[in-house]
Amino acid sequence: MKKAILLLSGGLDSATCGLIARNVGFEIYAMSFFYGQRHDFELNAAKKVASFLDVKEHRIVNIDPTAFGSNALTSSNIDVPKGSNISKDSSDIPITYVPARNTIFLSYALAWAEVLNCTDIFIGVNDVDYSGYPDCRPEYIAAYERMANLATVSGIQGQKLKIHTPLISFSKAEIIKTGLSGGIDYSITHSCYDPDAHGNACGSCDSCQIRKKGFEEAQTADPTVYNS
Amino acid sequence: MKKAILLLSGGLDSATCGLIARNVGFEIYAMSFFYGQRHDFELNAAKKVASFLDVKEHRIVNIDPTAFGSNALTSSNIDVPKGSNISKDSSDIPITYVPARNTIFLSYALAWAEVLNCTDIFIGVNDVDYSGYPDCRPEYIAAYERMANLATVSGIQGQKLKIHTPLISFSKAEIIKTGLSGGIDYSITHSCYDPDAHGNACGSCDSCQIRKKGFEEAQTADPTVYNS
Repeated sequence: MKKAILLLSGGLDSATCGLIARNVGFEIYAMSFFYGQRHDFELNAAKKVASFLDVKEHRIVNIDPTAFGSNALTSSNIDVPKGSNISKDSSDIPITYVPARNTIFLSYALAWAEVLNCTDIFIGVNDVDYSGYPDCRPEYIAAYERMANLATVSGIQGQKLKIHTPLISFSKAEIIKTGLSGGIDYSITHSCYDPDAHGNACGSCDSCQIRKKGFEEAQTADPTVYNS
Repeated sequence: MKKAILLLSGGLDSATCGLIARNVGFEIYAMSFFYGQRHDFELNAAKKVASFLDVKEHRIVNIDPTAFGSNALTSSNIDVPKGSNISKDSSDIPITYVPARNTIFLSYALAWAEVLNCTDIFIGVNDVDYSGYPDCRPEYIAAYERMANLATVSGIQGQKLKIHTPLISFSKAEIIKTGLSGGIDYSITHSCYDPDAHGNACGSCDSCQIRKKGFEEAQTADPTVYNS
């Protein structure tokens, strides 16, 4: 079986991305990151998804959280925005944007790919719901892939590395339908930026709103436990 | 003063690169990495160089050493090659090559640059002495810069990020002459891959050989203490 690295957050998108990778025949090496997130429900979800996908190895990498500065996902001093007024900064960038996050994640994946002699990386970025994030766009991914093929020994020897983004142009409803048709139980995934102490979703942060709307549009039951 | 990030290893090249950045008027934010190197003499040298350059801040980032697999710089199971037979693998890649290292380092620098609202990164890569390393070549750096400008909010808002590689085409002798003319005391820098317990250089690893030859060609005294 051909190996693939999967960037696995524990959310709905990366779980579906991993399912697609598995269903086209890849042996999956999953990589998750702890970078000072406010809670560990997301990483626990990643472990459950890794188990569901029957990955060959699941590596959790620690990243010094100061690398990303202060942002709403890692700093308890910044409130996660809620409700209908999802605040964005003056340039329409969500406050939950984490500087260069996907670039750092992909760079760890690239190193692991080279160590494993693997030429396929899967990342569940999406340009529909996260259009404010520069590092979720097709032109960014294409530029990263081009750089990666100049960065590594395998790349310059002609073993072309491919960054797969099967969800990049899907709506959340399409992602959910794809996953359900492949047998994912989405109750094991975690999307909420600000869960309660039991891990139940807040129901009103950006990520919860997108998830809720996705299940509604997919016309299927949302298995998420919301506390509001 | 305009800010710049400097990737600072503690070696001769990054010290000289930092000097050039300082001399063209940048306020320097230095970034070094601990990724399981066999010894800490390199990082201690980085601290001394940071002090000499009077940097605004020096951040030392921990990177999980398993990210890079096994290589001669981090694994005590692999001998650092010595003498006239510097071993390379079948494709002429030095055994001291660390997979995707510069890509990970630059990605941390990119995140910090965005946090600091800084658009200049200095890296002392050199394509002359390290021609076997894919991530020291101009085409790699150009591709990284292009990707970086698509990865970040500042990039897509037109604040172009520049990756400066002032040493990329210099010989080691030219690097040394440049540094000496700017007043660097190279005895505070560390190049050896395999120093003794006192931090004295082995004199025969790849890095020592290149350093020695550089001082010879620059026709200046080498301040390095070699133990052989």
